[in-house]
Parts: sequence; C-alpha cells; structure tokens
Amino acid sequence: MSSSLLIKTIKKSLRSVLPDNNQFYSLHEPSFNGNEWKYMKECLDTGWVSSVGKFVDRFEVQLAEFTGAKYAVAIVNGTAALHICLKLSGVEANDEVLIPTLTFIATANAAVYCGAIPHFIDSEIRTLGLDPFKLENYLSEITEIKNNECFNKKTGRRIKAVVPMHTFGHPVDMDALIQVCERFSITVIEDAAESLGSYYKGYHTGSQGYLSALSFNGNKIITTGGGGAILTNDEFLAKQAKHLTTTAKLPHKWEYVHDRVGYNYRLPNINAALGCAQLEQLPEFLKKKRTLAERYRKAFENVEGVTFFVEPEFARSNYWLNAILLNEEDIEFRDRILDSTKHDGIMTRPVWKLMHKLEIFGNCPRSNMTTSESIERRLINIPSSAGLIAF
Amino acid sequence: MSSSLLIKTIKKSLRSVLPDNNQFYSLHEPSFNGNEWKYMKECLDTGWVSSVGKFVDRFEVQLAEFTGAKYAVAIVNGTAALHICLKLSGVEANDEVLIPTLTFIATANAAVYCGAIPHFIDSEIRTLGLDPFKLENYLSEITEIKNNECFNKKTGRRIKAVVPMHTFGHPVDMDALIQVCERFSITVIEDAAESLGSYYKGYHTGSQGYLSALSFNGNKIITTGGGGAILTNDEFLAKQAKHLTTTAKLPHKWEYVHDRVGYNYRLPNINAALGCAQLEQLPEFLKKKRTLAERYRKAFENVEGVTFFVEPEFARSNYWLNAILLNEEDIEFRDRILDSTKHDGIMTRPVWKLMHKLEIFGNCPRSNMTTSESIERRLINIPSSAGLIAF
Repeated sequence: MSSSLLIKTIKKSLRSVLPDNNQFYSLHEPSFNGNEWKYMKECLDTGWVSSVGKFVDRFEVQLAEFTGAKYAVAIVNGTAALHICLKLSGVEANDEVLIPTLTFIATANAAVYCGAIPHFIDSEIRTLGLDPFKLENYLSEITEIKNNECFNKKTGRRIKAVVPMHTFGHPVDMDALIQVCERFSITVIEDAAESLGSYYKGYHTGSQGYLSALSFNGNKIITTGGGGAILTNDEFLAKQAKHLTTTAKLPHKWEYVHDRVGYNYRLPNINAALGCAQLEQLPEFLKKKRTLAERYRKAFENVEGVTFFVEPEFARSNYWLNAILLNEEDIEFRDRILDSTKHDGIMTRPVWKLMHKLEIFGNCPRSNMTTSESIERRLINIPSSAGLIAF
Repeated sequence: MSSSLLIKTIKKSLRSVLPDNNQFYSLHEPSFNGNEWKYMKECLDTGWVSSVGKFVDRFEVQLAEFTGAKYAVAIVNGTAALHICLKLSGVEANDEVLIPTLTFIATANAAVYCGAIPHFIDSEIRTLGLDPFKLENYLSEITEIKNNECFNKKTGRRIKAVVPMHTFGHPVDMDALIQVCERFSITVIEDAAESLGSYYKGYHTGSQGYLSALSFNGNKIITTGGGGAILTNDEFLAKQAKHLTTTAKLPHKWEYVHDRVGYNYRLPNINAALGCAQLEQLPEFLKKKRTLAERYRKAFENVEGVTFFVEPEFARSNYWLNAILLNEEDIEFRDRILDSTKHDGIMTRPVWKLMHKLEIFGNCPRSNMTTSESIERRLINIPSSAGLIAF
C-alpha cells in the first residue's frame, strides 16, 4: 500500500470507531461520573484530607477485594510503590534487577533508587511483555548460581529480582516466567501499573505474586490524581510496606521514634476518596474498554498492513491502551501516521523509547533486543478512554 | 510548685485561651472555608486532576508572589522537596550534610536518600533552630578547607550542605548562619516546611536563599492533602527542579526521552487546587494564629515555672505550633502534663525525639547537644489551629 493510502485507511478505521462529536480524541482521559464529588466533599467537611483518614483504609479494602490480593497498601504513586516493592524484596546497592526494555522509565528508576543496576531484557510479541523462554536461555548463558543466589558471570553482580510489566494492560505469561525465576532464584515483582482489571488465567494481575505495584496516575484506567498501591498476600510484607511508606514511625502516644530510614509515600485521604469513587466504576470502565477494543479489532480486521493488538489467549486484558502494529515494510511511515492523526485531533503515540537506548542506561547490561526493537518500530497507540463508548 | 498544682495551672491557662465549645482540641487541624470545593470541583468537571493542570501553575505563581521568591515549584510533599533541593545543591554519596538534631526526621532522611550522611548539630534556645555561633566554633575545630570545599577532619568526608529548619515556624538566625557557611564553603538549603508565612528581618523564610523546601501536609498552616514546594531565585535551578521531579523527560511531540534518572515528585492538579484555595486564606490564618499566640503568651505570663515560647526579636513568626517550656527543675512532670492534658481532650506533644538519639542515626557524627537536649526535656506543644480563633 502507498503511504498516503495507508494513512487514509488507518484514519478511516479510527474514525469508524470514534464517536463523531469530539473535537479532540486524547489517548486516555479519566471519567468522573460517580461519587467522586461526594467523597471528596466529605473530606473537606470533616477536615480529613491528609495522610490518615477513612478513605485510605476503605480504598485499601476495596482494592484487595477487587484484585483478590489479601492486602493492598495505598501509596503516593506507582513509582514509589515499585521502589518499596524492590526494597522489601531485598534489592540492595550493586544488585542487578531484570527490567523489560519496553516499559515506562519508572520501572528502571525504581531499581536505581535502591542503588541497583537495571539489566534490560527483551519482550515477546504475544504479550508485549517479558519473554520467559528467551529469558531462560539468556540466564542459562550469563549466570551462575552460588549459595542459592543468581550471579551475572560477566559483572559479578547478584541478580536479585525481575520486574515484569504488563504492557498496556496485557498480562505477561506469568506461569512460564515464575518457573524460570524459580530455577534461577530470582524474586518476581510485578509492575501492574497499567493492568488494574487485567486477569492472567483467571487471576488478577499482581494478586498472586510476592509483591506488585499499581498506579492511579491521571492517564490510568482509574485515577486518584496521583497515586499507586502495593499488593501482596503476605501480612508481614503488607505491614512493612505501610511502615516504610509512613516514615517508619513506631506507634507511641506521643514519641517520634523511627526504626528505619523510611519514606513519605502515603496516599493523602483526599486522593484516596477520589480512588474509592473511581474503583466503584471500574467494572463499567472495563466493559466499555473491552467494547472499544472489540470495535477497533473489527475496524482493522481487513486493513492490509495493520494488526490490532489482541490480548494473549491466556489473558483477559483491561485494554488500557489500544495499539496497532504496522508491518515491518511500512515502518518508514510511522511518523507520518503519528503526525497526520495528531493533525486531525486524534492523539496517537509510539511506544516509549526502549530503556537500553536511553543514554543514562547506555552502560547497563542487556539481552539481545530483536523483538522489542521491532515492536518499537511498528507500534502505535490509539485513543483508548472508556468515555469513547457511550452506553 | 508541686506537680499537681503545676498541671492544674497549665490546664487552667490553656482553657482560658481555648474556646469552650470543643470536645477535643487537636494540635493542628486545617480550616476549609474558602474556594477549596469550587476549585476541586472544577478539576473533576474538566477532567484535569493529575500531574498537569492550571492549578499547578497557578499555585506556583501564588506561592512565588506570597513568599517573594522568584520561582516556586510544586512538589508531591515536603520530604521530596528536601530530597530534590539536596540533589540540586550537588550533595553526593558519602558527603556529610549538617542537620539540626532537633527536627522532624524528613530533614535527615532527605540526606540519606542522596547517599549522604547526616551530621547532627545543636540548636539555640532563642530560635529552637541551628545555633550559628556554636556551629562556627564546632566547624573551626573539626573541619579543614581544601580546594574551597569543607572536609570533616575526623571522617575525611566532604561537608557539602547545611539544612537549617525553622522550628514550629520560628526563623533561624539566617544572617549569622550564612556568614558561617560562607566562611566554610557550605551550601545552605532552608527547610521551611513549618514556616510558610514566617519572616526573617522582613524577608519570607526560604525566599532569599539558594533553595528551600516547603510542606503542605495536613498538619501544616495550609494544606494540599499532601504536598510541598521548592523555592529559589535562580531560573536554572527552578527549571532543573521541575525537570527532575517530572521524570526528567525532555519535551518532544511524542518521544519519551529522559536525560537523567528523575523522580515522580509532581503535585497532582487536584491537590494544587486545594492549595490555591488555602493560600488565599493564608493571611487570615496568620492573623488568627498570631492572635492565638498572643493570648497564650498572656495566659502563661504569670505562670511560675512555665515559659511560652515567643518569636525571636528579628523575626515575625507564623506560630505554626505554639510551645511552652518547663523549667529544668520541673521536667520530671512533663509526661504527667502530657497525659493529663490528653485525658482532658487537649492534645499536647513533646518535641520529636532528637535525631542523634535515634538508633538508625546512632553512628552519625554530631556536635555537643546541650541546648537541644534541654529543649527536648522541657518543651510541650499545645493546640495551635487557626480555627481556635473565631473572629
């Protein structure tokens, strides 16, 4: 197909799905049609806006109920949640942490905050997330096990943890990944920032693992303004997460004794209030987003040279951000497609620049990146707000 | 005076100031009588709740205007603001940072987040903050200057910065401190978390320095739920602060390129909206809090064995938290006073446990602590909300 025909066809397919009453179609915007107003006003009326309050507790209970995790700890944002997950998993300075190269930078930054070194790993096209089989081969080559710990033979550093990220809401093949990580004694921390409402083989992403991080940033499926959470099934870890994120202060009627260098990573009550109201609407958002994805799938079904990305067969995805993939032969048109759709008020975006290509991470160890590099060239995100579906 | 008489007299004096319609007098609670609801509702109605939005910009402009600093950068909380101030001032791993032992733990933690070692310093009774004269003598003893940098002769580590904290809103003697720090080539970062609305020789605390941190936690004079800000007069530093706190992403129409390991320390728009409304009421809060302090001063004027803490003569304080000081001979009664007032629904509190006494900081270098230790034994904070004054 010629470039101009391809661009025209893509725009026509997008328009066939998007409602025609909008001037501008953002990539993802929140909807506030529930109790947001009521709950936030209650915070103001009672004076409880800050780091303690009933909405923080309620939000944590609601999150645990929704995801099926035993415990949820509300956190100031997803980056902070990842930081604490890595801390609690025992990541120390000079450890290596395996991170998908295809992710938002928070995943890698969280490792650096612990003094650790991100070690970048390739994705698979089936999930857009970590490729467990490729990882297994790679680890077999580069690591050795000493005293039940995994070491990078080249750098001599311990490989302590891996952080699979469920890209755009599509779950990583966790069973396969966990099997590999058990073999190599590597702790799995799930970056579920994008996958609230996504299920892997019937289980909510992040609900079965050791520790996982959620995000409620403004662009996510539900938002608290800024916010995040840690999920775990381990009571001790849940208590430690709360303790570490509330300045590690010990309970006392008036004394301020802190037993660790803690963090001020609490989610304020006013933001949790917003979260409670949003979470009530999550089932509706999920329904709308799956409808939107299905409409996109149909609209692109017969478009030559374009594939709409569909959830892996073992997953039920929240379709947080919808994506199309160009054929390799059309990748030279990617930027023109981005420009042209933007010009028409339809926001589109390529995937994040791959982590191993950022200058700041240029010296970090990494696997071969064939698949991630192909995805980076081919992928375009398209408007995905639940509000685009009217029912 | 006998212990029971002292307790009775203190409670009588407190009651003579406190309005008699309350069941419980907290140490500090916020008042929401302005445009809080209007501005927050506007965020919900427009969908702009998260990290970008007009209230973030407006809050920054209002803060700069109010304090007289050229630039204000809104931050997710005061701890994060301190962390970034230290980063921007060039504090590196293994540096020492001079911190008052009499402070909330955030000041010391921020140094640790940079990989630096807190080095604890004594306060003076005039301000409850760092004692510049004692500091000068101490630095003369323990440091040497090499290549225009200050080194601790004992540890061999560089002393890069000092973080004066304006305790309970009472300004440190900044002129004297700055003179000492210039002599020893030490950068001054102001911890103005408690001193929004406090002036040193006519200038707003934190507005004249290199970099300062504010806090808008729920217990502060104004609140954003959780929040903070950085003040500076240097355009480059202001831009760097914004850049570092927004994941260090470079502007681009769609690419995600980050040129540093940045942070997710943005203040959400919904919290900034609350801040804008609160800041509009700050002059009124300040007036009420000064009235409250004046009433306390009078109430305790003739109470033997108790001194109400009054702002230093060079300062106009926001009287964020009011405090009384017992005489040394009565310190054995402190805990009974705390218990008894609490029992009556009047919240009181001793000062934070001194930093050098926390086990986690037990190995950190420190000066002699005579004055701080005396303050710790003698000081009791008393109810201080602006809402306690009705006019």
